[in-house]
Amino acid sequence: MSDPAPRGRRTGGRAGRAAARLAHTAERVPFITRTFTPFEVLSEEGLSLIEENADAILERVGIDFKGAPDALALMKDAGADVEGERVRFPRGMCRQLVRATAPSAFDQHARNPANTVHIGDTATVLAPCYGTPFVRDVDGGRRYGTIEDFRNIVKMAYATPYLHHSGGTVCEPVDLPVNKRHYEMVYAHLRYSDKPFMGSVTHPQRAQDTVEMARIVFGREYLEDHCVVMSLINANSPLVWDASMLGAARAYAEANQAVIMTPFILAGAMSPATVAGAAAQTLAESLAGMAYVQLVRPGAPVVFGSFASSMSMQSGAPTFGTPEPALVLYVLAACARRLGVPFRSGGSLTASKLSDAQAAYESANTLQPTMLAGVNFVLHAAGWLEGGLTFGYEKFVMDLDQCGMMHALAKGVDLSPNGQALDAIVENGPGQHFLGSAHTLANFETAFYRSSVADNNSFEQWESEGAQDATTRASAVWKKMLAEYEPPPIDDAVDEELRGWIERQKASFPDSNV
Amino acid sequence: MSDPAPRGRRTGGRAGRAAARLAHTAERVPFITRTFTPFEVLSEEGLSLIEENADAILERVGIDFKGAPDALALMKDAGADVEGERVRFPRGMCRQLVRATAPSAFDQHARNPANTVHIGDTATVLAPCYGTPFVRDVDGGRRYGTIEDFRNIVKMAYATPYLHHSGGTVCEPVDLPVNKRHYEMVYAHLRYSDKPFMGSVTHPQRAQDTVEMARIVFGREYLEDHCVVMSLINANSPLVWDASMLGAARAYAEANQAVIMTPFILAGAMSPATVAGAAAQTLAESLAGMAYVQLVRPGAPVVFGSFASSMSMQSGAPTFGTPEPALVLYVLAACARRLGVPFRSGGSLTASKLSDAQAAYESANTLQPTMLAGVNFVLHAAGWLEGGLTFGYEKFVMDLDQCGMMHALAKGVDLSPNGQALDAIVENGPGQHFLGSAHTLANFETAFYRSSVADNNSFEQWESEGAQDATTRASAVWKKMLAEYEPPPIDDAVDEELRGWIERQKASFPDSNV
Repeated sequence: MSDPAPRGRRTGGRAGRAAARLAHTAERVPFITRTFTPFEVLSEEGLSLIEENADAILERVGIDFKGAPDALALMKDAGADVEGERVRFPRGMCRQLVRATAPSAFDQHARNPANTVHIGDTATVLAPCYGTPFVRDVDGGRRYGTIEDFRNIVKMAYATPYLHHSGGTVCEPVDLPVNKRHYEMVYAHLRYSDKPFMGSVTHPQRAQDTVEMARIVFGREYLEDHCVVMSLINANSPLVWDASMLGAARAYAEANQAVIMTPFILAGAMSPATVAGAAAQTLAESLAGMAYVQLVRPGAPVVFGSFASSMSMQSGAPTFGTPEPALVLYVLAACARRLGVPFRSGGSLTASKLSDAQAAYESANTLQPTMLAGVNFVLHAAGWLEGGLTFGYEKFVMDLDQCGMMHALAKGVDLSPNGQALDAIVENGPGQHFLGSAHTLANFETAFYRSSVADNNSFEQWESEGAQDATTRASAVWKKMLAEYEPPPIDDAVDEELRGWIERQKASFPDSNV
Repeated sequence: MSDPAPRGRRTGGRAGRAAARLAHTAERVPFITRTFTPFEVLSEEGLSLIEENADAILERVGIDFKGAPDALALMKDAGADVEGERVRFPRGMCRQLVRATAPSAFDQHARNPANTVHIGDTATVLAPCYGTPFVRDVDGGRRYGTIEDFRNIVKMAYATPYLHHSGGTVCEPVDLPVNKRHYEMVYAHLRYSDKPFMGSVTHPQRAQDTVEMARIVFGREYLEDHCVVMSLINANSPLVWDASMLGAARAYAEANQAVIMTPFILAGAMSPATVAGAAAQTLAESLAGMAYVQLVRPGAPVVFGSFASSMSMQSGAPTFGTPEPALVLYVLAACARRLGVPFRSGGSLTASKLSDAQAAYESANTLQPTMLAGVNFVLHAAGWLEGGLTFGYEKFVMDLDQCGMMHALAKGVDLSPNGQALDAIVENGPGQHFLGSAHTLANFETAFYRSSVADNNSFEQWESEGAQDATTRASAVWKKMLAEYEPPPIDDAVDEELRGWIERQKASFPDSNV
């Protein structure tokens, strides 16, 4: 890092030690760098067809930009056909706008420069769960989330070496008024973590507030040429972008901060029920959103987002971890690479209400494609339950363990002489075990990923230790993480300025839950 | 199938109907045919290095063929350097022997020709758990397996559309004498299923008995040019093949029946603790085993097998679903393709004692690589718990559901006009949901994989229905499968001949547990 450290940062000593305790021998990296070529499910011809269909949708149907006259004006000036709130794009126009100025990758700078993440290329950045109104743990069951839960999640995401990002609305702090929650949420990310974070998007003013708070901590000038906030902008599928989301996107883009333009597709409801249909529509919607961002501020960092789930065709409920969303993910990751922009999708998704086998199968069936497709930014990598309605404390711990495994998987195969171990095999000979061999002893500590949750002991030992299931073991882990948490350092003057600013803002208008 | 139906088969009507009830809209296929290019973790250069190291191991260290003078004689005649029981192979010799005569793919014929499986190429065949001494269900807990459990597993593997193969020792029927178990195990496969099956390997005579029973059912001549039995031959790693396994392999190969030559590697104990080391050693061991089979009977069907697990470096216990065995699997699947032989590996493996989240994460982390690597034959695809010590009834049901998802995943993306759904998107327009659209209605039944275990309902509905976890729901599923089971038809005369032969064999020597 030749970049100057941002304002408000001292040292990371205590944090580093706390993490080391949790991670045992885990190597701490600011993000995953994959070594393999992403898995593909479509040929070049197949991908071209998806792209052509996206262009056809943009040309023949178009996108509604609702309540956003600025967007309509920008689009019209750029050559789009605007009729009321409907914008139709000449074939290839959105793609050209994005290709012309959107960065293919960028850094999101953290308060601690060691935690700055790269968004794009071969990097994968893992972030916690986003947007759950409820939380659950094995002792207390399911209840509404509070700001205390929010801070707990930020603290645990900070402590683990397996998440690279503090996320955004890691749960909804339902105990705070809707119109002032964002102050305490953003403050929690800035104070209890020094990893990169996400900003408020529920109103353009809240996005402005997020930028202002970032300026206090990072320095006003720093933001002009450094991305320090990345925020989630959802489309209102099918084929609609709404005023509040566009307003938030505009606020961030004008400040040169990153936005993730994400169609949220429950296939069968917000798109056709087929993989190729959902993929083409998602691409069309995101292309229009990313083009808007590039018209607001050419060169502003932007991410192609996709959230795709399948649906129970009996009940209409969203389903996760099924094959069809995995196929959508593989297709769109390839489309993002062809377009030359970073890609957000995937996570550890499940419809299960508990951290049971359903939750684990579905989460693994999402996280594996997420990694193998080469997704660049992964929201909901840990903690998600119940289709995103609930953050699970034990589920969070289990998912962290899986995120740890993805670090090891992405490293690929060590082909160094030590990795090949040919001499060890030759010296050992037939019929002799390797447990005490010099090679095994030399590789003892780092040979295999060590799970923090799995029980690999004999049945008898497991039974004598209480015959615990994975959820019970995970419960002890998150309690230990919180007990051992130590906050990262912050400059007292900066913290004081930030708190003062927040209190003045909060006092300047009445609480409201709208 | 232009092949004549084997003897002893009538119709599949009732079986077909029973399966249809279980599978709902599931399309019944005799095996999975994948549409994608397998995922790769090594470059051509990397794979060549693994192959060179395998050759170096065979040349410099060699393999012990223990208590098998016939193997030593065959190897010596073929040009190997034999010293005592140690056989060293000139560089490339094993590879050339295998390449020269081993079929790149073959059919394993089932009693019901509709269930004949293809082993190799783009086919993936899923088979149940193998070799567990214990069984477990949520009502009765963990106990020794019996022949009744064995028959239950065969019946369920027959009923599900998501396993293509009846497997072998689906559990150990510990209530029968060791030296006579194989009669009732093979009989159960032949009587309670009409899918392909695996034979006994614990003694060369038991392999002969398996072949004899197959001849009674399929016809003596039929076996001469049809593979109807495929059996699992394990190496005694590192670098040893033992007499009993080689004897069984010889019995099958001489009868032109298939064997899977499988090094069973707990990396760190039976091989070095590195991915590249475990892969090179596995390749060397399997190459020597496959070369032996080709020397016994050139052209006999043979499968390259690998079972690789990582190890807890604290306790020495095997660990599953971790990144390192997945990498070994990807590497060796690529080596098998380069060698031109079918590949066996993977499954739904776990060290968990329960069908909890650990079991599910670990199983999914094994089954995903199994599919994406393009494994051709998958033992332990359903039911495995506790490192293979226990068959779990509920785990079996959950794994079947996952196997069903793999069918959908492997089909890939439908790019037909209906799959593209462009007209549906164009007609629908912005802001209108697709729930009632003609396209959605037309695709309603088959759009998404339907899980038999997952609960996707709202929290409130799930709670009002008893707040069941996945294990509880799975318990009801296997009971229903067994209650609805109807055996496939068999010719009464054949069944009588088979039972008579078995009873005469059993009466001809005393019971023994050795």
